[in-house]
Amino acid sequence: MSKSLRMIAFAAVPLLLAAANSSAAGKSMADVLAASKPSDWRPLDPQNTMYMDLPTGRVVIELAPQFAPNHIANIRTLARGKYFDGLAIVRSQENYVVQWGDPDAKKSFGEAKKSLAPEFTRPAAGLKFTVLPDPDTYAAQTGFVEGFPAARESAQGSAWMVHCYGMVGVGRDNDVNTGSGAELYVVNGHAARLLDRNVTMVGRVVQGMELLSTTPRGHGAMGFYEKPEERTPITQIRMAADVPEAERANLEVMRTDTQTFTDLIESRRNRREEWYKVPAGRIDVCNVPLPVRKAKT
Amino acid sequence: MSKSLRMIAFAAVPLLLAAANSSAAGKSMADVLAASKPSDWRPLDPQNTMYMDLPTGRVVIELAPQFAPNHIANIRTLARGKYFDGLAIVRSQENYVVQWGDPDAKKSFGEAKKSLAPEFTRPAAGLKFTVLPDPDTYAAQTGFVEGFPAARESAQGSAWMVHCYGMVGVGRDNDVNTGSGAELYVVNGHAARLLDRNVTMVGRVVQGMELLSTTPRGHGAMGFYEKPEERTPITQIRMAADVPEAERANLEVMRTDTQTFTDLIESRRNRREEWYKVPAGRIDVCNVPLPVRKAKT
Repeated sequence: MSKSLRMIAFAAVPLLLAAANSSAAGKSMADVLAASKPSDWRPLDPQNTMYMDLPTGRVVIELAPQFAPNHIANIRTLARGKYFDGLAIVRSQENYVVQWGDPDAKKSFGEAKKSLAPEFTRPAAGLKFTVLPDPDTYAAQTGFVEGFPAARESAQGSAWMVHCYGMVGVGRDNDVNTGSGAELYVVNGHAARLLDRNVTMVGRVVQGMELLSTTPRGHGAMGFYEKPEERTPITQIRMAADVPEAERANLEVMRTDTQTFTDLIESRRNRREEWYKVPAGRIDVCNVPLPVRKAKT
Repeated sequence: MSKSLRMIAFAAVPLLLAAANSSAAGKSMADVLAASKPSDWRPLDPQNTMYMDLPTGRVVIELAPQFAPNHIANIRTLARGKYFDGLAIVRSQENYVVQWGDPDAKKSFGEAKKSLAPEFTRPAAGLKFTVLPDPDTYAAQTGFVEGFPAARESAQGSAWMVHCYGMVGVGRDNDVNTGSGAELYVVNGHAARLLDRNVTMVGRVVQGMELLSTTPRGHGAMGFYEKPEERTPITQIRMAADVPEAERANLEVMRTDTQTFTDLIESRRNRREEWYKVPAGRIDVCNVPLPVRKAKT
């Protein structure tokens, strides 16, 4: 790639700005990542990691049972029963969601439940919640719970995962009791925060999001495909725990309850790279990167 | 499409919620659109409308000379000099931007300027600014200026267009004087608001965004393609004014300084459709839809 190409992203040389009282003052994200310790990372738990294998590759989804234990238990049962194998991506709506499930609603649920009570919110009490000091349009507080972007009313109120890009939720009909986890969607555009607290969120895509985001858009209502041949088939969905160790993705994600993560947020709130002339000063919960890396084995 | 498929979007029957003091109380966006008058819409100005023709179809971009007159004049000169014809999409970065220009930096600029002083912000005074009452993470005020999402410090301070999904900006090097309009990008993910006031914004995609958003992601640094054959070629870029009338897209966009648009915002701030159980109560400037339709001729 020609070096003369104009770029809008960061340059390699950090510029030291007049800095806030933070240990991250002057650090770029690259600096923060380079200085991170092994204890700043955690491996994905195979019991809470789902592989969605498409003809184009593997999508890795981390599930958050602290928010939706019943739906995630049901998803595990569905995956172990091979429910998703041979189903398809049925919907791809521009700047909204990509959704998958059984287009014919014919496949047996096996031992899984066909519907579940909603898990839209839960008590904030008991969650390890790293609060972001920045104001948010939609919620009293936003932040991170063990790697997932989240919001809460207060430490004593209710909490929920928020609809950032790459977050995964449970499709349902108008009745809130119609979700099961058999039909899932991922946010594929600007954070669809209007959906917060209206849907059971189950996790986030940690790798392979580009396999979903580039699916051809559907031209039916709400981005559903009009013809079966437009759909992307799902080869299989498996829990990582059910895949031989040698075939696992073996990923680590950055912990979100550490000084390193606080430093990383600051490195994005006020970009230090020379390209940036006006630091934003604040950051939206959905603009905080959640680093993922291959585990060193 | 099977009716039993779980959906996460709106149902056809609106639910009347206990309503705010608004003429939009109880109206869904579909209701607001159905009730809109011809005067709620404006045709795109052919002098400020750019067609980017790709092998897959046409992208229509509305330019905003009230924010970046010099860059837009230069883009017009480049388009009229056929500068963009045969160039390519050179970058597609997941949840960030898609960018196009001259990968070899060899093509003559003709009568266009090779660099321009930045137009990152301008005085808010003189702009018809529809203020959104909802709080924003990044700016003191957000809202809309003649169809473009924007922010300002105050009515007397500076104003700028914001990096919502589909907004188009000018690539540059570290030096702020290196932009020209010859290399452009579009936001393809969650609003990259950290770029606000760091880039000259020139407009927004009003049609054909899916042709850009589904481009295969580049695997080089910052999503640049590593191999020339991965790039999407640009057939041509033309100003609508330079295209015979019969070949124009003939689109209208909703005006953003009307009661109808205020009603539309309210219909999205608090969704009335039966599917929604908890109205958001607030809305982010980048979640407000900007309706586009084919003009009735």
